[in-house]
Amino acid sequence: MLETFPNPTPGRDYVIEHIAGEFTSVCPKTSQPDFATITLRYCPADLCVELKSLKLYYQTYRNRGIFYEAVTNQIADDLNAAMKPRWMQIRSDWTTRGGIRSTITVNLGEVLPA
Amino acid sequence: MLETFPNPTPGRDYVIEHIAGEFTSVCPKTSQPDFATITLRYCPADLCVELKSLKLYYQTYRNRGIFYEAVTNQIADDLNAAMKPRWMQIRSDWTTRGGIRSTITVNLGEVLPA
Amino acid sequence: MLETFPNPTPGRDYVIEHIAGEFTSVCPKTSQPDFATITLRYCPADLCVELKSLKLYYQTYRNRGIFYEAVTNQIADDLNAAMKPRWMQIRSDWTTRGGIRSTITVNLGEVLPA
Amino acid sequence: MLETFPNPTPGRDYVIEHIAGEFTSVCPKTSQPDFATITLRYCPADLCVELKSLKLYYQTYRNRGIFYEAVTNQIADDLNAAMKPRWMQIRSDWTTRGGIRSTITVNLGEVLPA
Amino acid sequence: MLETFPNPTPGRDYVIEHIAGEFTSVCPKTSQPDFATITLRYCPADLCVELKSLKLYYQTYRNRGIFYEAVTNQIADDLNAAMKPRWMQIRSDWTTRGGIRSTITVNLGEVLPA
Amino acid sequence: MLETFPNPTPGRDYVIEHIAGEFTSVCPKTSQPDFATITLRYCPADLCVELKSLKLYYQTYRNRGIFYEAVTNQIADDLNAAMKPRWMQIRSDWTTRGGIRSTITVNLGEVLPA
Amino acid sequence: MLETFPNPTPGRDYVIEHIAGEFTSVCPKTSQPDFATITLRYCPADLCVELKSLKLYYQTYRNRGIFYEAVTNQIADDLNAAMKPRWMQIRSDWTTRGGIRSTITVNLGEVLPA
Amino acid sequence: MLETFPNPTPGRDYVIEHIAGEFTSVCPKTSQPDFATITLRYCPADLCVELKSLKLYYQTYRNRGIFYEAVTNQIADDLNAAMKPRWMQIRSDWTTRGGIRSTITVNLGEVLPA
Amino acid sequence: MLETFPNPTPGRDYVIEHIAGEFTSVCPKTSQPDFATITLRYCPADLCVELKSLKLYYQTYRNRGIFYEAVTNQIADDLNAAMKPRWMQIRSDWTTRGGIRSTITVNLGEVLPA
Amino acid sequence: MLETFPNPTPGRDYVIEHIAGEFTSVCPKTSQPDFATITLRYCPADLCVELKSLKLYYQTYRNRGIFYEAVTNQIADDLNAAMKPRWMQIRSDWTTRGGIRSTITVNLGEVLPA
Repeated sequence: MLETFPNPTPGRDYVIEHIAGEFTSVCPKTSQPDFATITLRYCPADLCVELKSLKLYYQTYRNRGIFYEAVTNQIADDLNAAMKPRWMQIRSDWTTRGGIRSTITVNLGEVLPA
Repeated sequence: MLETFPNPTPGRDYVIEHIAGEFTSVCPKTSQPDFATITLRYCPADLCVELKSLKLYYQTYRNRGIFYEAVTNQIADDLNAAMKPRWMQIRSDWTTRGGIRSTITVNLGEVLPA
Repeated sequence: MLETFPNPTPGRDYVIEHIAGEFTSVCPKTSQPDFATITLRYCPADLCVELKSLKLYYQTYRNRGIFYEAVTNQIADDLNAAMKPRWMQIRSDWTTRGGIRSTITVNLGEVLPA
Repeated sequence: MLETFPNPTPGRDYVIEHIAGEFTSVCPKTSQPDFATITLRYCPADLCVELKSLKLYYQTYRNRGIFYEAVTNQIADDLNAAMKPRWMQIRSDWTTRGGIRSTITVNLGEVLPA
Repeated sequence: MLETFPNPTPGRDYVIEHIAGEFTSVCPKTSQPDFATITLRYCPADLCVELKSLKLYYQTYRNRGIFYEAVTNQIADDLNAAMKPRWMQIRSDWTTRGGIRSTITVNLGEVLPA
Repeated sequence: MLETFPNPTPGRDYVIEHIAGEFTSVCPKTSQPDFATITLRYCPADLCVELKSLKLYYQTYRNRGIFYEAVTNQIADDLNAAMKPRWMQIRSDWTTRGGIRSTITVNLGEVLPA
Repeated sequence: MLETFPNPTPGRDYVIEHIAGEFTSVCPKTSQPDFATITLRYCPADLCVELKSLKLYYQTYRNRGIFYEAVTNQIADDLNAAMKPRWMQIRSDWTTRGGIRSTITVNLGEVLPA
Repeated sequence: MLETFPNPTPGRDYVIEHIAGEFTSVCPKTSQPDFATITLRYCPADLCVELKSLKLYYQTYRNRGIFYEAVTNQIADDLNAAMKPRWMQIRSDWTTRGGIRSTITVNLGEVLPA
Repeated sequence: MLETFPNPTPGRDYVIEHIAGEFTSVCPKTSQPDFATITLRYCPADLCVELKSLKLYYQTYRNRGIFYEAVTNQIADDLNAAMKPRWMQIRSDWTTRGGIRSTITVNLGEVLPA
Repeated sequence: MLETFPNPTPGRDYVIEHIAGEFTSVCPKTSQPDFATITLRYCPADLCVELKSLKLYYQTYRNRGIFYEAVTNQIADDLNAAMKPRWMQIRSDWTTRGGIRSTITVNLGEVLPA
């Protein structure tokens, strides 16, 4: 599902960031919808993720029951398997539930500042 | 009172943040209510704190008389005892009293940037 | 409980606004705390509300179970009884519950713009 | 589905506003999800809409294919049928599509400023 | 080029707003590109403008030399001819040139506030 | 103390606004300092207030004990006596005391929008 | 100095706004430089002001000693003489002097809202 | 004047911040009032500063003639003498004078990020 | 096309930043226009880029079909060839497509903070 | 022209920042005025710059034709010669020209974070 294309400058150390503000999944405990912004930042090795397939991949969570921590780690694992980047960061920022806003951040490899 | 669940990816180094904007306690000196935003950030070891129990735990301070410094350290101690995270940060941001805004930040272990 | 003092310039048409950002009451259905900002705007006739008594009056709702609509109308009635202003507006802005923010606005008499 | 409760002060002219930031439906043309903030403002006659049923009502659009204009008018019709308010305003603010942000506003009766 | 579809609720008085942040044309005097945000607001009679055709219509200005005032009036005329709305407002907000930001607003019919 | 100069265009209806962000006086009840922003808006008749004398006039309140309502009306009376403008508005915005922000607005004559 | 061009749609009632953020003149009393943002809004009759000549016209004040009120009225008179618009508004927003920010607004004719 | 209380968790490395937005002193050269926000950040050793005494201490500068640099260093010295913290930072942010905003920052010991 | 001028202080280590908010190119896949802000930061060696030629260089992309990653690396290569700076950073911030905002950052040499 | 006064605490390592928002010079190529905010940050050795003389020094550029890079380096050299600080940073932020905003930053010595 996650399509890739060859990194146009594979020898160069650079950073790609995609911020998806329209992510939604379902809480497995309450069956209520959850809403988040997903931020992907990575340094490509040989492959980059194709933007439209990334959008469709995120949409597969629309009606899935899954916890905050699991979603974030699952996305990190799937993107890591598809692209094998030098490093990657996934951050999910969730809307308020019970007066509490939550953010989960997963780093694979040593993430450089933007 | 603070419930936990197993960290779904215990071998991975990642960060969980919960920002609770509706914290209130009582000043033991003046008996007037105090209001704060409590920010918890931590890297889980084997356990994560369950979100609803965290909300209910914070509500136990609603009618307790306790100083800024004591609240913040007490929350840090209770969460540390319940989760034993790799590292943890508790920050309390209090509304203005006498023209002065206050913030207390407690770190347990070496806190990594978000 | 609501104390008043004589309007220092009773013949003049002017507007007093008090914005209280630290209001909290309890939801009678879920027993969970609610949080709001209460904005009072009024044109005094013979009496003005004393600021400290207004603060203490708002604090009496801290552990009372009462709905949004009822709180707002109750505050309007109590302040109207105490001050008998030429006109008055009470607005309550509540924090997010279930992804929805609510505001209730009660006008007594013809409210002039600020 | 939309539950109501009796207006606690039916003789008074006041305004209730509910802002739902987590609305989502599906575009019938592209099958892609749409995202909006739905703002309901109304002056109640005999009935008020119950907040939790409003949330669940909005969730019924989650997997329905329907256009911006139709969603907004449909919500207006359903709420009008359920509450018969003195006046009502529904506004839907949609996220960017093709570089264009859209807003649809439906007024039933003469809407008063907030 | 500007496609329309039938107004789904032709008997109702409501407002549609489309904000296009990616408009660009060319200054006929200096041949330099100009950039604007175009805001369309209207109350439909029998027809609504289709969103994708609106986007493509705006793109036809990309390499045309035309002044601020002429663009704005031209868009108003074209949309008025295509939709014949009850009223319409076109506003163009241009980026800074020579330290000056400009806005042109054209109203056809009596525009109601948003 | 409040100096004036002749209105350069006495036959024209225009608006002058001076926003003073550094006003301070003393609460007569608690002897604690109060802080406000004072906004003067007026349409001159024959006279305009000189800006430096206005600043020095405001500084005379620095160590005076006086209530919010009295300060605002006193400033309005003094400026009205000095300038006799067509209309005038004085607004005082006070910093938070006991969790409550206050604003007092006094209009003399019919104030036009800015 | 102020050049004009024919209004492209002279029969239509529309609004042109030019916001110049880089205006500077000299205080005749202290010889210190003053800085302002000048906002021109007008409805053209037969003529529009040409943008580059407007910029150069504003620059003629760079080393002139002139008071706030006089600058604003002078600009209004000069633009009125050059364009004879249906209505016009000039607003000057000056940077802080002695802790006070000032704004002067001159209207010629009945100004319509933007 | 500066009162202290024992650090409730003396063995722990944590940060206390107090932001006082209502500081005012007098310029010794011009006798005009100055206005600043004073930010204190420190890591306590055995003692913490009591908040009300800090407020009253700041008020002692209200009618004192003293320069920006001297105020900031004086506050640092007085707080250091009273609390002997592990480290301390005092920052004073002054309002605009002659078009220039100034900030003075004094660090005692190695200051850690918040 | 990219013109340069000699660095006026070639022995000094300093930073030049140019932020171009009006960049547009064309997506080679969809033929739709793309919009970005391009930020160039660099430390000059012997040469600086001339600002007007930089603007004209950016305009050459207006009707070229090219991907985000390729644009950003191409600009970096062209500027590096023209100026041979000590270090350089190019960042492109693209407007939302399919609900996703993207940023590409290319560093040549070790970039110092601003 | 640049006057100094003795550092009141010469043995202490602290930071002074002056932000001047009203800087203007003239472009030597186009003879058009340029506008910038100049930020000076430094750690004093034996001398501090006097604030009023700094303001008058900046005003000497008002009618001088000089490029961005040259202005910034010239100011750095003049202030360095006058004060001989431990370290100093000069940053100039220029308003938009041709759709591009520019910033020049010069560091002398090792600059510490604020």
